[in-house]
Order: sequence, then C-alpha cells, then structure tokens
Amino acid sequence: MAKQKKAPRPKAVTPKGFRDYFGHEVTERAEMLRRIAGVYHAYGFDALESSAVETLDALGKYLPDVDRPHAGVFAWEEEDDGWVALRYDLTAPLARVYAQHRNDLPTPYRRYAMGPVWRNEKPGPGRYRQFYQCDADTVGAASVAADAEICAMLSDALETVGIPRGDYIVRVNNRKVLNGVLEVMGVTDEDQAADVMRTIDKFDKVGEEGVRELLGKGRLDASGAYIDGVGLAPEQADPVVAFLTSKGTDNEETLANLRGAVGESAIGAEGVDELAQIAALLEAQSYGPDRIVIDPSVVRGLGYYTGPVFEAELTFEILDEKGRTRQFGSVAGGGRYDDLVKRFTGQPVPATGVSIGVDRLLAALREKGRIEAREQGPVVVTVMDRDRMADYQAMVGELRRAGIRAEVYLGNPKNFGNQLKYADKRQSPVAVIEGAEEKANGVVQIKDLVLGAKIAENATLEEWKERPSQFEVPRDQLVAKVREILDGQGD
Amino acid sequence: MAKQKKAPRPKAVTPKGFRDYFGHEVTERAEMLRRIAGVYHAYGFDALESSAVETLDALGKYLPDVDRPHAGVFAWEEEDDGWVALRYDLTAPLARVYAQHRNDLPTPYRRYAMGPVWRNEKPGPGRYRQFYQCDADTVGAASVAADAEICAMLSDALETVGIPRGDYIVRVNNRKVLNGVLEVMGVTDEDQAADVMRTIDKFDKVGEEGVRELLGKGRLDASGAYIDGVGLAPEQADPVVAFLTSKGTDNEETLANLRGAVGESAIGAEGVDELAQIAALLEAQSYGPDRIVIDPSVVRGLGYYTGPVFEAELTFEILDEKGRTRQFGSVAGGGRYDDLVKRFTGQPVPATGVSIGVDRLLAALREKGRIEAREQGPVVVTVMDRDRMADYQAMVGELRRAGIRAEVYLGNPKNFGNQLKYADKRQSPVAVIEGAEEKANGVVQIKDLVLGAKIAENATLEEWKERPSQFEVPRDQLVAKVREILDGQGD
Repeated sequence: MAKQKKAPRPKAVTPKGFRDYFGHEVTERAEMLRRIAGVYHAYGFDALESSAVETLDALGKYLPDVDRPHAGVFAWEEEDDGWVALRYDLTAPLARVYAQHRNDLPTPYRRYAMGPVWRNEKPGPGRYRQFYQCDADTVGAASVAADAEICAMLSDALETVGIPRGDYIVRVNNRKVLNGVLEVMGVTDEDQAADVMRTIDKFDKVGEEGVRELLGKGRLDASGAYIDGVGLAPEQADPVVAFLTSKGTDNEETLANLRGAVGESAIGAEGVDELAQIAALLEAQSYGPDRIVIDPSVVRGLGYYTGPVFEAELTFEILDEKGRTRQFGSVAGGGRYDDLVKRFTGQPVPATGVSIGVDRLLAALREKGRIEAREQGPVVVTVMDRDRMADYQAMVGELRRAGIRAEVYLGNPKNFGNQLKYADKRQSPVAVIEGAEEKANGVVQIKDLVLGAKIAENATLEEWKERPSQFEVPRDQLVAKVREILDGQGD
Repeated sequence: MAKQKKAPRPKAVTPKGFRDYFGHEVTERAEMLRRIAGVYHAYGFDALESSAVETLDALGKYLPDVDRPHAGVFAWEEEDDGWVALRYDLTAPLARVYAQHRNDLPTPYRRYAMGPVWRNEKPGPGRYRQFYQCDADTVGAASVAADAEICAMLSDALETVGIPRGDYIVRVNNRKVLNGVLEVMGVTDEDQAADVMRTIDKFDKVGEEGVRELLGKGRLDASGAYIDGVGLAPEQADPVVAFLTSKGTDNEETLANLRGAVGESAIGAEGVDELAQIAALLEAQSYGPDRIVIDPSVVRGLGYYTGPVFEAELTFEILDEKGRTRQFGSVAGGGRYDDLVKRFTGQPVPATGVSIGVDRLLAALREKGRIEAREQGPVVVTVMDRDRMADYQAMVGELRRAGIRAEVYLGNPKNFGNQLKYADKRQSPVAVIEGAEEKANGVVQIKDLVLGAKIAENATLEEWKERPSQFEVPRDQLVAKVREILDGQGD
C-alpha cells in the first residue's frame, strides 16, 4: 500500500445500505446456492456468470437530461466506455449475453446464474442495496412446457433447500388472460390499461370492493385521502373482479371461471389454454395443486411479463416485528418475457424464467429453526508454553487429519483466562490443555466446553454436576476423546 | 421493465476489460473455491463476505485535486455517501471490517473471504478488470506461528485443489531482513531506500550484475535506453547482492548466509530469527523445503509488507503463446502487514495473510489437463410428438430421480435434425427417442452420442463400426440402459 499522507483517519463504515456477512451467514448462503444450482443443473441448465458491471445502455436504463443517470442503479461514467452500472438483476444481463453470444449458444438456451445485484434505492430494515439472486431462465423456447418446467424446478429447489411440501405454494397466473379481460372490458387506450393494471396491483391490499371503487369513481383510503378512480362504468369492472376472484376449489374450476371472465376474447382464450396446458403437464408429473396451483389473484409482475407469471410463497406463519402472526410471503417470482432480447436484436425471442430471493429464503429457514443460528467453532488447543508451539501445532494437525476443525490459540498466551474467553467467543466445543506437568506425564486435559456452559447455566442441576466436563487422557488418545465428546454433544 | 422509448438499439457488449463465464468455467471455479474454503475452515478460519462497494476513504485511495478519483479503482460519487468504489482487493475491506467490528470479533480474528475484485486498469490478453481472489488472514496475532500457519494452509490448499507435491513451492522471505540490509548499507534516506527497493524488484529480470549496475551508476537496458542508477558506492551493493543470492542448499545454509548479509543490524537479526522460527515450526509439522522454503530471492511484495512475505509458485513448465516452455509462475502471495488497521484506529494491529489468484490457478489446472476442458451436457429426450410432452417429461423425471442430468428438447420439434444438432451443441452423452411406433411397441430408442461421434470421426475403424451406437430397449429399462451407457463412456 502507498504511504499515507497525514490525513484525518477514515471512518470504518460501509456505505449506507450495505452490510457485511459473517461466518455461518456466508456458509449457509453458499450451501443454499450450491443446492439450488444442483437442482438447476440436473434439469439441464448451464451456469453463467456475467460481469457485475454492464454498460448502462445494455442494462436498459437511460440517462435523463441531467448529470446523474436514472435513479435505481449505481452508475458512473468511464472515460473510454461512457456510462456503466452495476447490474440491478440477473435478467437484463442475460438478455445482453444471449444477444451477444447467440450464434455460439444452443437454442433453447437454459442457463442459471447466482450472485449479488445492486439497487440504488432507499435502504430500510432488512432492505439492503446489495443482495443475492439465484435465477434460472430458458431463452428461445416458446412452448409453455418451458414455463411448466420452471415451475416444477422451482418446487424441487424449495424442497431441496429445506422447505417441506405444504409449507410453500407456487401460484401461476397469465398476463394474456388479463389482456383478454381488458379486451372484454372495452379498454383499448394504453394509458387507461396501465391505470387498470395499477389498480389490480392493489387487489391484495384493498380487496374486491376496493378494486371496484378504484376502477370507478375513486376511494377514500385508510388515511382519509381520496384516491381518484379510473372512471370506468360499474359493469366494466365485472370482468376484472371475475378474473381476480376466479380461483376455484381446483384448477378445473378456476380455468372454467377464467373462461367466463375472458368471454369472447381470443387472446384471453389463448391465455386460459396456456394455463390449462401448464396445469395438465404438471399434474402428469405429480406436481398437483398442493405444490403448484393456477391462481389468478397473483398479480405481482403482471405488468412486466408477457405470458405466464409465477410466484412462490411460503405459507407458514411467523411473528412480525410487533409480535403479530403473519404469513412469510413471497420468496421467488418469475414469468415469460418475450420482448427482452428484442431490444438488442430487433427480433423477438421467447424467454421464461424465475428468480429466487436467496436472502429472504435464508431468513425464512432461520425463522423456522431449520438451520442453526450459530456455527460451531473449532477445537482450540491452548498454549501453556510458548516455546512448545510445534507440539500444539502437531495436535491440531492430528485433529484436522481426522476431519475435526481445530486451531492453536495464536494471541498472547500469557493470560490463560483470555484463551478460554477466546474459545468461548469462537463457540468452540472443546479446549485442549497441555502444560509442563501434562507433558511430563504424557497426558492432555480435554475440556468439554458445551457441557461446561450448561453446568455454569444450571449450576443447581445435579445431573450436570455429576458429569465431568474435563478429562485427562493419554496424549495418544487425544483425537479419539475429542471425537467422542463432539459426537456426544450432538445429542 | 419500463416501456422503451424509440431509441437506437443498445450494443450487446460488456464494458471493456470485462467478460462472461459459461458453464464449466463457472462450476469449476465454484468447486475450487469450495475446496479451498474447506481447508481454511478446517484451520479455524471463519467466512466473511464484505460489501463489494466501499467508501473510497475506507479503501485508502485518495481523491486528487481533479474531478476523477485515483486511477486503479472504479469509483463514483453518491449524493448521500460521497465517493464510493468497488473493492480492488479483499485486504483493504478486511481492515475496515476489523476496525468497525473489533469489539464483537474474537482476537485473533481468523477470516477467509472469496469473491470478485475490480481493477480499473488497462486490460490485456488474459487480464480482466474483474477477477476472483480467495484470501485468508489472521488479524491480531503478532506471533510468527501465525505466518507459519498461513504457509502450511496455503500448501494444503494447493494440494487440495489438485496441484501435487513437487509441482508447487511456497517461498518465504522477510521484509525485516531487507531493512537490516539497508541499515548495514548505510541507506537511511527514505527516498533512497525506496529507490533500492525498486531496484530489488527488478532482480528477477536483470540478475545480480544488473542489480549492481542499477544500484551504482546505471545501466543500458535491452532496448538501448540508459537507466539512471541509484548512485551508491560499489561496496554498498554487496549486502543487497548477498541478501538476494543467499539461498543455500537447505534452510540452515540460507539462514546462515542471511545472518552474514545483515551483519550487526538488530532489525535484520530479528528478521532472520523470524525466518528460522517459521522454518522450524513448519519442519516440525513435516512441511519441509520440498513444499515451503526460505528463499530471499522472492522480492515481490517486499515493499508492501512489514514482516514475512510468502509466494506460491507452480514449478511445472507450460508452453507460452509463442510455443516456448516457461514456468507457470506465481498463483498466490501474501505476508505480514502490521499497519493496515492502524489507518482507522490509530493503534497498530498485527496481521498476516495470503491471497490465492483463483483464475490463474484454474488456468494452470486446465493447462495440465487436470480438469476437463468441457463439461458433459444433459441427456436429451427428443420430442417426436408434441402432444405427448407429458410422456417425455416423465422420462426426464425418472432419469433425474436416478441422479442423471436430463432434459426434454424445448425448441420447435418439427425438424428432428435440429434436435440432434442441439444435443451435439450441448455435449449430450445420450439422446432418447420415442416416436409413435416405439410408443405402440412399448420401447424407446437410445443413442450413444459419444460413441456415435467417435464412429463419425473414424469411420474406417472396424472396432467402432462393429459396436452399435443406438439401442432399442423396453420403456421400463430406459434408466438402466442410459446408466449403462454413461458408465461405459467413462472408459
């Protein structure tokens, strides 16, 4: 590093909205990504890692007339490249990669990608400006068999990372059905269609009656403010409401209701047919509505996608910040977006895919106690005599060769209490002690720190008091005894 | 995505110096990182993933007086955060993290980190602006036992990823020895010391005689240009040359030579003692000079580090671009840097660590044929009848449940030749065919594509001609036959 000029000391902080991840937070995410990648790979998807930095042009955000680029992305100007930016998702880079390499890639191109993405948005509790996504997409396949495959794979991926059947549901909707609904409503004006779309997005919050009011004259919201309506006639709202509430007791009933909602619309009928095909393909593979279900009340993303839309939701309840139970909610979403590659090539290229929100999924598993909240630390070999470091290194070497995580204490060994405090901070299961006396007698002391902590916590419990938490064993039984204690701690 | 205005089509390219990684390039790197992390973890190191974006201040690059920040980093200004930048290595962020969280972290803090770093430097062949590092560091341990541990761990890591003993060497040097050499030379002026350091850096290229010339009056370089010398007296160069050429036939001889080179210098003697301790600790653990050796000719990084310096080199020969043999060279480096955290806290904190250049190490393994250059693709189930998609999906389901990577062809199935071309492009080992006739007879056709390719290549070889590459088997033997073919292809 270059020599520092006398300058005020820098602050040891991340930029706003960024954070660091420690120990098990990192390894658990890596393990989750590895498992999801295993599922994607088994389905024939190939890995892709695109560069984190893209031209702003390729990402599809445009510079306004002012100095700073569009909000939402981290962007800056390079002398030789113009404006570049950190990717804000893994889909926009896929479109660029496919357009750039399409002559060398197979068609259809099934690819998966995992890694951080960056959003220049206002951070909040649990909302960071850098987070992980784990995507799988099929580019160049127009068949809804590709959509059905994505849904089945998503279901497999969730079960593979530890969400049991019954604790999640993948819901499927279709933008074309909504287009059919707009057609039978007589909404042809693009701006009005966009207004209807925005209203539909609020269905989760305001319900059927709220949607009717917002499509009509307007609505007094909870804060007392009056929200202007879209201004449609009351009967024009009927197909929308029929669409949103068409979920029946099974897919067959739902599909029948949807056929009613889209009436004579050709695009609407096409959309319902697609959903029927997806349901049939999935049911033939035993992905029944307990895992994947047609559900027209899923409206998130309907504005973005061009065909089928999927969303995976965890259905178990958790306690929110205020101690109220609520459903955990969405952990993955996706759908068909046939226009993305066209930006580059001028030719429409069908594509469909899904993105799993890995950090949310990890939070869910921690919430349910399905993964350990803390990682076990290494066995710590203490240093009683700093001139015999080689002896202590030999011990950790033996332990590691037996597959046991182990280390020698490398701080100042003078104060032995500090060594045990260190082992405590590391969540070490076992400490090993060999002083001059032990050395002379050919033995080592082995402390069971997990049991020791239990005894300290429950000092009145006889059952703990009677069990020893420190053992003296011959030096050559070090590994065997540590293994025995570790195995016992699993109980 | 927001609706696109009519704009010229964006170019489908990465920014200059960036690239995409496909398929096995991604999975092989992930596997290498996983294995190295396993070694680091077994040594008691904890994972850390710091944010990719840091304040420029924390990274330790300072703004010049002009508009653009220091070259070398990708940096930009945020309204609410000032100048921020992409990390250029994993060490500067570690210093920030340790300074920020030191009250919560154990001391010593052993951590590993892996991920991309970004350099805003001129790209060249094989040199990209985004590349991976995989680091391990111990913060807060002043003992050279920490340095010895890093060297042993580096040796283990290299063997774990597939570099056999004898194909690599970890060389260890010490900045303090060089400081001792400067002392006995009588070089006390900081600028002059820096000049000597720069000269030493050229030892690899110019050799002993060149170093003598550059320390004295100067030297005519290969291009015919005259390079001014440092201007020292000829005898002043002696200790430097003694230092650089002190490597003996074993560590003992090297250490004796070094003691000669540093003469009466106290700091020099301390440096030699440290090297002696490192050698003794490592030899006691059987890390002899066939794996880790004291080698004062290692000068890379001596200017940056404050104590022991390590470098791992692959010693086998490869062919360069021009077909000449050369040694593969350095794949990892590190050392002790006791001043890094001090920037933030004002207190010196001892630290030592190593960084493995993962992309170079992967290149070395590929060069030696130790990892497959291409990944095997999935079994492809072709589509003879698009109405029986569910049947084909059932086949891939069965194959996947048996642990076999498999997929249904999802492109337009009309042209069967395209389906086989697709399987070829995917490097598929096997294609499965079930037309109406097969369906009626309860059989499937299974094509061995690897054997088929061999036959096509060597059509004259009788041994291939006699072996069938396509088999008709009962439908219920699909999985067993595919498994048999895949196992046979491994031969």
